[in-house]
Amino acid sequence: MSERFTHFDDEGQAIMVDVGDKADTQRLAVARGEIRMREATLERILDRRVEKGDVFAVARIAGIMAAKQTSALIPLCHPLMLNSVSLDFFPHPGEGRVEVEARVKVGGKTGVEMEALTAVSVATLTIYDMCKAVDKEMVIGEIRLLEKHGGKSGSFVRGGAARPGGRESGE
Amino acid sequence: MSERFTHFDDEGQAIMVDVGDKADTQRLAVARGEIRMREATLERILDRRVEKGDVFAVARIAGIMAAKQTSALIPLCHPLMLNSVSLDFFPHPGEGRVEVEARVKVGGKTGVEMEALTAVSVATLTIYDMCKAVDKEMVIGEIRLLEKHGGKSGSFVRGGAARPGGRESGE
Amino acid sequence: MSERFTHFDDEGQAIMVDVGDKADTQRLAVARGEIRMREATLERILDRRVEKGDVFAVARIAGIMAAKQTSALIPLCHPLMLNSVSLDFFPHPGEGRVEVEARVKVGGKTGVEMEALTAVSVATLTIYDMCKAVDKEMVIGEIRLLEKHGGKSGSFVRGGAARPGGRESGE
Amino acid sequence: MSERFTHFDDEGQAIMVDVGDKADTQRLAVARGEIRMREATLERILDRRVEKGDVFAVARIAGIMAAKQTSALIPLCHPLMLNSVSLDFFPHPGEGRVEVEARVKVGGKTGVEMEALTAVSVATLTIYDMCKAVDKEMVIGEIRLLEKHGGKSGSFVRGGAARPGGRESGE
Amino acid sequence: MSERFTHFDDEGQAIMVDVGDKADTQRLAVARGEIRMREATLERILDRRVEKGDVFAVARIAGIMAAKQTSALIPLCHPLMLNSVSLDFFPHPGEGRVEVEARVKVGGKTGVEMEALTAVSVATLTIYDMCKAVDKEMVIGEIRLLEKHGGKSGSFVRGGAARPGGRESGE
Amino acid sequence: MSERFTHFDDEGQAIMVDVGDKADTQRLAVARGEIRMREATLERILDRRVEKGDVFAVARIAGIMAAKQTSALIPLCHPLMLNSVSLDFFPHPGEGRVEVEARVKVGGKTGVEMEALTAVSVATLTIYDMCKAVDKEMVIGEIRLLEKHGGKSGSFVRGGAARPGGRESGE
Repeated sequence: MSERFTHFDDEGQAIMVDVGDKADTQRLAVARGEIRMREATLERILDRRVEKGDVFAVARIAGIMAAKQTSALIPLCHPLMLNSVSLDFFPHPGEGRVEVEARVKVGGKTGVEMEALTAVSVATLTIYDMCKAVDKEMVIGEIRLLEKHGGKSGSFVRGGAARPGGRESGE
Repeated sequence: MSERFTHFDDEGQAIMVDVGDKADTQRLAVARGEIRMREATLERILDRRVEKGDVFAVARIAGIMAAKQTSALIPLCHPLMLNSVSLDFFPHPGEGRVEVEARVKVGGKTGVEMEALTAVSVATLTIYDMCKAVDKEMVIGEIRLLEKHGGKSGSFVRGGAARPGGRESGE
Repeated sequence: MSERFTHFDDEGQAIMVDVGDKADTQRLAVARGEIRMREATLERILDRRVEKGDVFAVARIAGIMAAKQTSALIPLCHPLMLNSVSLDFFPHPGEGRVEVEARVKVGGKTGVEMEALTAVSVATLTIYDMCKAVDKEMVIGEIRLLEKHGGKSGSFVRGGAARPGGRESGE
Repeated sequence: MSERFTHFDDEGQAIMVDVGDKADTQRLAVARGEIRMREATLERILDRRVEKGDVFAVARIAGIMAAKQTSALIPLCHPLMLNSVSLDFFPHPGEGRVEVEARVKVGGKTGVEMEALTAVSVATLTIYDMCKAVDKEMVIGEIRLLEKHGGKSGSFVRGGAARPGGRESGE
Repeated sequence: MSERFTHFDDEGQAIMVDVGDKADTQRLAVARGEIRMREATLERILDRRVEKGDVFAVARIAGIMAAKQTSALIPLCHPLMLNSVSLDFFPHPGEGRVEVEARVKVGGKTGVEMEALTAVSVATLTIYDMCKAVDKEMVIGEIRLLEKHGGKSGSFVRGGAARPGGRESGE
Repeated sequence: MSERFTHFDDEGQAIMVDVGDKADTQRLAVARGEIRMREATLERILDRRVEKGDVFAVARIAGIMAAKQTSALIPLCHPLMLNSVSLDFFPHPGEGRVEVEARVKVGGKTGVEMEALTAVSVATLTIYDMCKAVDKEMVIGEIRLLEKHGGKSGSFVRGGAARPGGRESGE
């Protein structure tokens, strides 16, 4: 793993690093985070979902659209033409907790970790926004990279994360 | 506290709720979150800071600019003309942890919780981006509203948060 | 009704006209449009809606977010802090036709016709995008202002439009 | 033609579909729409055009810039690096009607139908904006895809559209 | 005139300063800049203008739209709801020089100097873009604030600038 | 050098020109500009820099982020996936003058002159914004292309510019 912060040059000045020599490879990143809330709040989200009014549907769109804005939000991120973005929501009703997972793919010169992490962040923020009238003490957390494939540095799979599933193991 | 999700109408359709009858009042929101990393990563951030190349300076700008884009990111958020935005970074070197706090003010019809939370989220994402070449296992978490003032619902101060300081108690 | 194009000065140069002398009043605009498609396409949209996968829910979010970007899209439009945006979808299954109606409110110096029309346009474009794999011959049309209230020029209600309902009469 | 809505996964969740396996091919899309207005309004537009103050010139710029923002407006659209965008305006003075046609090209993995349709939509909205002080009853309509080339699904040319020309047959 | 840089707090951290205590007043800013080019290039611009194809018309729209994006471009700028924006172009054919002047008005808590300067900058950049195929040695310069009115600090009129006119004295 | 303005078609209508036939080549552009101010203002910038509060660090981020927004700001610019962006600041304390240089690289079909010039423009505007409380008479100028490589037209190096250094000769 690199020994230096690549986003600064030798004089400590922030730069958008040159990726011109990198190969265009197929890349995938998966990130996950969660939002914790009162159990009653989550019950209400899930109740409504069955009827009508789907918090997760709105948060999903927000996350997908945010993934496309990543390079406009994160100062030193490279613009990328994303091949796909998908988000999954895993509610844990007994725990007042919703996990959010984003998968982003690209064929390009840089990885899409930031796009996946940004999608998760904005999706959880959107859940917060839609539920804040009934619960102001929600906490967004555990936003992390689960895995990453493609590019010169090869694959990364988060250590003890032992993610017990994914889409398949979802709800 | 309201018994309904205000971002859906009676038929469960997402709406940007009408705030036309709300008064323009001075509003403040304070949000906080953190990013956890290997101690060596944080040491490197702090070392460089003394010399040159300041991760927090870049993250601060990213957070401020993101606060101004909140209504473009969060689907049902109202546009607001923010009066001020500031971010503070509280590194805890022994714990490999950096806390980020955002304060946002507005004179307007809706609160600025989402702006403060978005600023914290994007600032922590920017730290992640700048350090990910040396540490891919960083975790962003504990993003929450600390306090909120102004508007009809009055002041909210997070329960057990007992924030032991703030800017004053910073570094 | 004005006898001149207000978006040009005396020399025929495009300007964003000065609204500084206008009063801040409560303003409402309602716009409507439609997208026509094969009956089978609409049936599929409505079928899925009952199960899962709601085209209208995605289009609604797109329309609301577009309303907030109106002044960035339409060159001479003034920025406004919208008070509310809502969209309704009225499917006419026997006719292969979906009507889309947007209502936008603001307290400000200029009307919100463009915001309502933009919301309708982008919502219908989003329906097109989501259905174009099964039907490339859809047509977007009849995008028009239904009514407008507030401001010095007073209320406008579209002539022969005799809108037989609205939200109430919707589906 | 596909039998499913590609923008939902098997569980009915909106996704930005994976285009990673698609080839980069040269693609073209042509869309057309119109705005109908009182004859006197169109006469005024055309009069001014001869002198000074060109409504179509402003609408053309708005349409081109909107084409570049398509993936930010339409939730599930892929970002694309457009190769070219052009817009043509075909006024029909005797009918109080202006047709707008957009042509968009790209070398990429997805088609540019949405970019062409978005360019037409925003160009007609801009005409509406610039003329609304003298005519509030304008109607935007007949926005449709005329043709589309490139990509695995091959060429599409709209059925009965029998477009009697194009740029050549214009004014 | 203030003795401190208001965009840093006491610890030297960048902030978007609090304008909550400032009064909403009517404000105006006028900025001017120029682009210098070969005389032949300017002749060509002016020739085409008479016929068809108006470089200044495109640059004017770009400048107006950029003024509305100022707070998204300049990190510590406050968002503002502009009341008006206009740009004028003053070609000096004998000198291969085009002056660009922007006037921006707002009723708000902060001045609009940055909006006027940004409009001039982007308008001159747009001229550069449109002419760079025939002249790569153009120089953009003399971008400065001419005058500023409204707000607690009162009026500022640039010293030796002795602008001999304005729109009136233009060409 | 081309004899025509490529951004207009034969009828004088603005177009985003077709670059579909151009090859993807490695391209570099370097632009430079300056901002002139009172010597005392520059001294203050440089003083603070040593302590804390770095005007250039904020301006650098603004310039990098603006480079990524170029195609959204300049109407007829093509979107590009930039490979790298860097900015350097060369203060000339005895002259009350700061030079700003931007270097932008891409592998693509069009050059990145506009991205480099836009980065310089927005960086100087940001310096203006941060110093305007103490000096309203600053002037931004001499924004020009220094060199450009790649593409069919080959290399361009500005004539008498004889740039006496670059990063090396910096501070």
